Amino acid sequence: MLDIAAYKSTEKRGQGDSQSGSSIRAGVLGGSGYAGAELLRLLARHSGVQAAIPFTRSDGSGASSDLKITNQPATGQKQLAWSQEALEGEGIDVLFLATPHEISRELVPVAAALGIRVIDLSGAWRLKRDENQSIYALRDADRTMASRCLQDAVYGLAELHRAEIADAKIVANPGCYATSAILGLAPLLQSGFVDLGRGVVCDSKSGVSGAGKAATERTHFVSVADNLSAYSVFTHRHVGEITEQLHITTESFSFTPHLLPIPRGILSTIYVSLSRQHSAAEIGECFNDFYAGEPWVRVLGAGSLPEIRHSLHTNYCDLGFTLAPDGKRLVVVSCLDNLMKGAAGQAIQNMNVMWGWDEKEGLL
Amino acid sequence: MLDIAAYKSTEKRGQGDSQSGSSIRAGVLGGSGYAGAELLRLLARHSGVQAAIPFTRSDGSGASSDLKITNQPATGQKQLAWSQEALEGEGIDVLFLATPHEISRELVPVAAALGIRVIDLSGAWRLKRDENQSIYALRDADRTMASRCLQDAVYGLAELHRAEIADAKIVANPGCYATSAILGLAPLLQSGFVDLGRGVVCDSKSGVSGAGKAATERTHFVSVADNLSAYSVFTHRHVGEITEQLHITTESFSFTPHLLPIPRGILSTIYVSLSRQHSAAEIGECFNDFYAGEPWVRVLGAGSLPEIRHSLHTNYCDLGFTLAPDGKRLVVVSCLDNLMKGAAGQAIQNMNVMWGWDEKEGLL
Amino acid sequence: MLDIAAYKSTEKRGQGDSQSGSSIRAGVLGGSGYAGAELLRLLARHSGVQAAIPFTRSDGSGASSDLKITNQPATGQKQLAWSQEALEGEGIDVLFLATPHEISRELVPVAAALGIRVIDLSGAWRLKRDENQSIYALRDADRTMASRCLQDAVYGLAELHRAEIADAKIVANPGCYATSAILGLAPLLQSGFVDLGRGVVCDSKSGVSGAGKAATERTHFVSVADNLSAYSVFTHRHVGEITEQLHITTESFSFTPHLLPIPRGILSTIYVSLSRQHSAAEIGECFNDFYAGEPWVRVLGAGSLPEIRHSLHTNYCDLGFTLAPDGKRLVVVSCLDNLMKGAAGQAIQNMNVMWGWDEKEGLL
Amino acid sequence: MLDIAAYKSTEKRGQGDSQSGSSIRAGVLGGSGYAGAELLRLLARHSGVQAAIPFTRSDGSGASSDLKITNQPATGQKQLAWSQEALEGEGIDVLFLATPHEISRELVPVAAALGIRVIDLSGAWRLKRDENQSIYALRDADRTMASRCLQDAVYGLAELHRAEIADAKIVANPGCYATSAILGLAPLLQSGFVDLGRGVVCDSKSGVSGAGKAATERTHFVSVADNLSAYSVFTHRHVGEITEQLHITTESFSFTPHLLPIPRGILSTIYVSLSRQHSAAEIGECFNDFYAGEPWVRVLGAGSLPEIRHSLHTNYCDLGFTLAPDGKRLVVVSCLDNLMKGAAGQAIQNMNVMWGWDEKEGLL
Repeated sequence: MLDIAAYKSTEKRGQGDSQSGSSIRAGVLGGSGYAGAELLRLLARHSGVQAAIPFTRSDGSGASSDLKITNQPATGQKQLAWSQEALEGEGIDVLFLATPHEISRELVPVAAALGIRVIDLSGAWRLKRDENQSIYALRDADRTMASRCLQDAVYGLAELHRAEIADAKIVANPGCYATSAILGLAPLLQSGFVDLGRGVVCDSKSGVSGAGKAATERTHFVSVADNLSAYSVFTHRHVGEITEQLHITTESFSFTPHLLPIPRGILSTIYVSLSRQHSAAEIGECFNDFYAGEPWVRVLGAGSLPEIRHSLHTNYCDLGFTLAPDGKRLVVVSCLDNLMKGAAGQAIQNMNVMWGWDEKEGLL
Repeated sequence: MLDIAAYKSTEKRGQGDSQSGSSIRAGVLGGSGYAGAELLRLLARHSGVQAAIPFTRSDGSGASSDLKITNQPATGQKQLAWSQEALEGEGIDVLFLATPHEISRELVPVAAALGIRVIDLSGAWRLKRDENQSIYALRDADRTMASRCLQDAVYGLAELHRAEIADAKIVANPGCYATSAILGLAPLLQSGFVDLGRGVVCDSKSGVSGAGKAATERTHFVSVADNLSAYSVFTHRHVGEITEQLHITTESFSFTPHLLPIPRGILSTIYVSLSRQHSAAEIGECFNDFYAGEPWVRVLGAGSLPEIRHSLHTNYCDLGFTLAPDGKRLVVVSCLDNLMKGAAGQAIQNMNVMWGWDEKEGLL
Repeated sequence: MLDIAAYKSTEKRGQGDSQSGSSIRAGVLGGSGYAGAELLRLLARHSGVQAAIPFTRSDGSGASSDLKITNQPATGQKQLAWSQEALEGEGIDVLFLATPHEISRELVPVAAALGIRVIDLSGAWRLKRDENQSIYALRDADRTMASRCLQDAVYGLAELHRAEIADAKIVANPGCYATSAILGLAPLLQSGFVDLGRGVVCDSKSGVSGAGKAATERTHFVSVADNLSAYSVFTHRHVGEITEQLHITTESFSFTPHLLPIPRGILSTIYVSLSRQHSAAEIGECFNDFYAGEPWVRVLGAGSLPEIRHSLHTNYCDLGFTLAPDGKRLVVVSCLDNLMKGAAGQAIQNMNVMWGWDEKEGLL
Repeated sequence: MLDIAAYKSTEKRGQGDSQSGSSIRAGVLGGSGYAGAELLRLLARHSGVQAAIPFTRSDGSGASSDLKITNQPATGQKQLAWSQEALEGEGIDVLFLATPHEISRELVPVAAALGIRVIDLSGAWRLKRDENQSIYALRDADRTMASRCLQDAVYGLAELHRAEIADAKIVANPGCYATSAILGLAPLLQSGFVDLGRGVVCDSKSGVSGAGKAATERTHFVSVADNLSAYSVFTHRHVGEITEQLHITTESFSFTPHLLPIPRGILSTIYVSLSRQHSAAEIGECFNDFYAGEPWVRVLGAGSLPEIRHSLHTNYCDLGFTLAPDGKRLVVVSCLDNLMKGAAGQAIQNMNVMWGWDEKEGLL
């Protein structure tokens, strides 16, 4: 049986700047992508955020797009080119990055050195195991500065690491598939219910925004519509963070992502063999205990399975399960919106934890 | 040239209960449908609404559905069966109906008699012209009570009738197609730009939630997906409210709705012949002047046309246009989310006007 | 290691009525459904079929629908009400049923008694194991006649039972999910590559036509679009035929079907643990050997995985695989069109085998 | 009243090579695109085509793609690089081009000079009016050779120009939108039913394959799904061929194309004012008379409107209409599959006319 402390920090709430009425200034890099645009939308509604300033790259690329609207008062939303001076001049308290990990590797150390707290949606700081350092191509040139950031970074899944996130300088916001898989498996593994020797299968399906905004043959409408396809079988990058977070070996985890003909949303169907026969009530209790009081995980009752549509445009991860008649095999279904709980929504949740705010703030 | 007063009440803001901090109790009938569910979601987020209570029909049918969630604190959201006693007992200040017009005909007079302000999403009270009374099948039995309500009812398009809505006892919330068509045409007609003798064409396309929740051959996924179909050509009910609101004849307005393979959203492509040659700048000025300061209408600049996706999950109606090279023909494109500006969002906007609140409250 | 004979009849081609120019008369019951309509379309193009006559039920219900076309010569396609006299009067040689299994249970014995060869797309005659007789609710009243038909019926998967199909009186056309799962697993099981003790997982996803034409909340466009949902986990009817055909236990086979937001097509992602380490070349050889010469199975080369869209509107089942880096875990992906290889196309293929025709006839 | 001869050549069947059993060799340039791939699929099934040889561009680019299949006999389908020698060496009788018009401008004269009959799916040879020559950017360098080809080319709409197509050296295969608009309007214009002074509106909606295979922001799945957008209002290239073929002015024809979230299919909603009051029976007779005996146009009866799905994967153009209650306004709905009747299917139909074959051959 695994130690609960391996999975879950016991202290539930962050101890950041918790006086009510506090207000911070946020910077967002990567607002031209899907997750970055969602971040800007959410920050604009957040009562604790005084300003959310989009940054372009230092060469001006990566501006967030705009409808050309003539009858509305100018939004006055400046887009600043990235520079140390701009960060300081704007008095940025928290910096969100929705950028490729190579960009994050370069820029996060700069922001961290200025004492700016960072929430990075890229994979740059998620993996700590040595054998996983090649997944996001850590270059030799990055090694010194990056290894310091890596050391400081906390994996930003509040359901497992709330206390550490509250004090974190750098939060490595989890991957979308990883969030759905880890939340579906952690209670079972922590309770010792899983026969790992027989392997765990995670069959995940994601909407196309998960593949990013790049226009390719693979993201062309005609390639995706009326279709389903599997990709990166056994080799997807998120296998690294899932197995690290769950303290299991790569060999015991078979993962296949698929591209669904929908814009957003993830459903993961997870198959485990139980270490002994269990009742559905025991499984339900396992999940309910683990997620009691969690604001953004909903556990469905026995006989109910989540569907993608109920989590869309929300920050919920919805979980349900079906036990086989033999009581020895279990299917867990985990759903979330890849741009919300799988990216921007979870980043806001992490900010709420870091500043000691209500975890639901800005997300309803 | 038409009189601007025919289109637009000049006083811009309602004079309701405007002291800050006021808080009201809302009842919702029809929460089991798409628009009703959206209403409940929006009311739950609204700072001026102390409670939003779903009512079932008096026989208990029409309850809003529910995910069976086990780890969340009980929401305690009672669903009351409709009765005069329940309305009074709950201290309902405003009643929303997202019901068939036959139900509205029966229940609105009851609520109105109790002094409860009503926002009715059905078509029951939208039409005033005699020749249009048959559209929503006014029965003889309804006539006395209903004719009083009809007299009291205000057509709930704030962009045209803001002042009347502010004082209204009963607001007839506009139809989804009608909202898109009227907002696209009103500035041009008010300015006298349209040669009505050559007719106006409105070719509208709607997502399937507009057809309601009833499972029929027509709403079956396999019938809708990979498809487009026209229906109710020349005879759709919304022709009545569009022509009444725009003060034009039925014969000058050709309307074809289509069923799009998307869950929600409307795009109307409107063709008008201009009474004389105009420049694009003149057309743009016409729209910008008419909608200056409007919180929920966005006019796009010349050369930009709205798309459905930018208005989804918002309360905006987006408008754009293209002028023909001959300067005598104009295409206006009007987009909105049929469940938001086309139904529940507009109902909230009307409530905001009625209680003198910021028109954006609860809708961002 | 399993015996190849358990999986595959060695004689490859049927010995039916093989003189060229033979022409038969077909009856189709159930033309109002998706599979029945596809059958009528395919039969109309088949060079060996002189006439394809749609039958309604004896009460006239279940007629195939029709576009009301005025400028085409009358198709003259009569729809006959089902009766023994009509079957005889029309000189029906082969009867296709695309009906619920309860209807098939009642009508197939009648047709069989007249010496008419039957291809039944329902589940009525697919299952032979005693413990599976309850799956399609064999009633006591059915038992005598039905048990005779059950004895005569051959499971209509030509890749496994070609010789028996060639001589069959009754062909039980396989289920759509079952076809995709069996074809993906049979080569591996026959070669003894699978460690059954660790269980087989089959995660399948189907388009909505697989759920039939009934309009329900579940098949409503708004319920399906932008969504994915799992259903009947561990308990889907097709588990019976898959495990029977593969000679494995129910306990070793975990099956989850999902409803995809597409009209047609199935993709099954199958996870097996190998009994020893294998190379990708060995796995490829296993599939290629098993399906050598098969007209309707395409095995993709290493590194290629099938997608639903490439099998749509064809009778192909496409197979591909990825071997884990450890050489001990394998993912097989199997794609087909549920209305073609999963239903009507496979029925035509079976007719081709039964009459000794080229198996591709009428299907290109 | 217009002259029927302006619309429709009276001789119904081509006088080409009509002896049965004739067999020809086809070349296809552009097989890597959607229409080219459909062409190759259709040619492979055509009984009059001995071989269909895909050509790449002379530099080898533009090869048609391929599933990597290992258990099928080699298809042996060579792909030849374009050259005069290759055309001659292969004994090509007919050359299909599914290429950009710039490529067609360059290569068609070469093929024509060799006496090869050409069916060009590009717009290069569709427009004869001087004022339309700029639409497909005829360059000075092209002018000599191209003007000869332009003179020889016949607009490949068999319903209007069957006799000319039968003898044509070069067939300019019509545009997809144009086919739907022309077939919907020609009968009414030919009969003099239309009051052109009030203008004709054609509101068309197309699936994404019509936008071609290029991966752009506009064809990205996330941009198209759950969306509808209008584009090229008043300025789409097909306005040229529609107005030329219908002998009307550009000013009398307002055309707006839209991008539908479906892979294929076109629906055009066409609005005309009638020159006098008509009955629905008169309108129906007009369409039925015009299309009597046409194999690939289906006229639906009064009260029925075509939907895209019924024409998908067929070569039919389906037509229906609704007359306004005032008897003076008419909406015509025209549906087709943009890759079939709108491109490759119509090209095959034209080949059938050119060689005197049954016009349905290879298309059922």
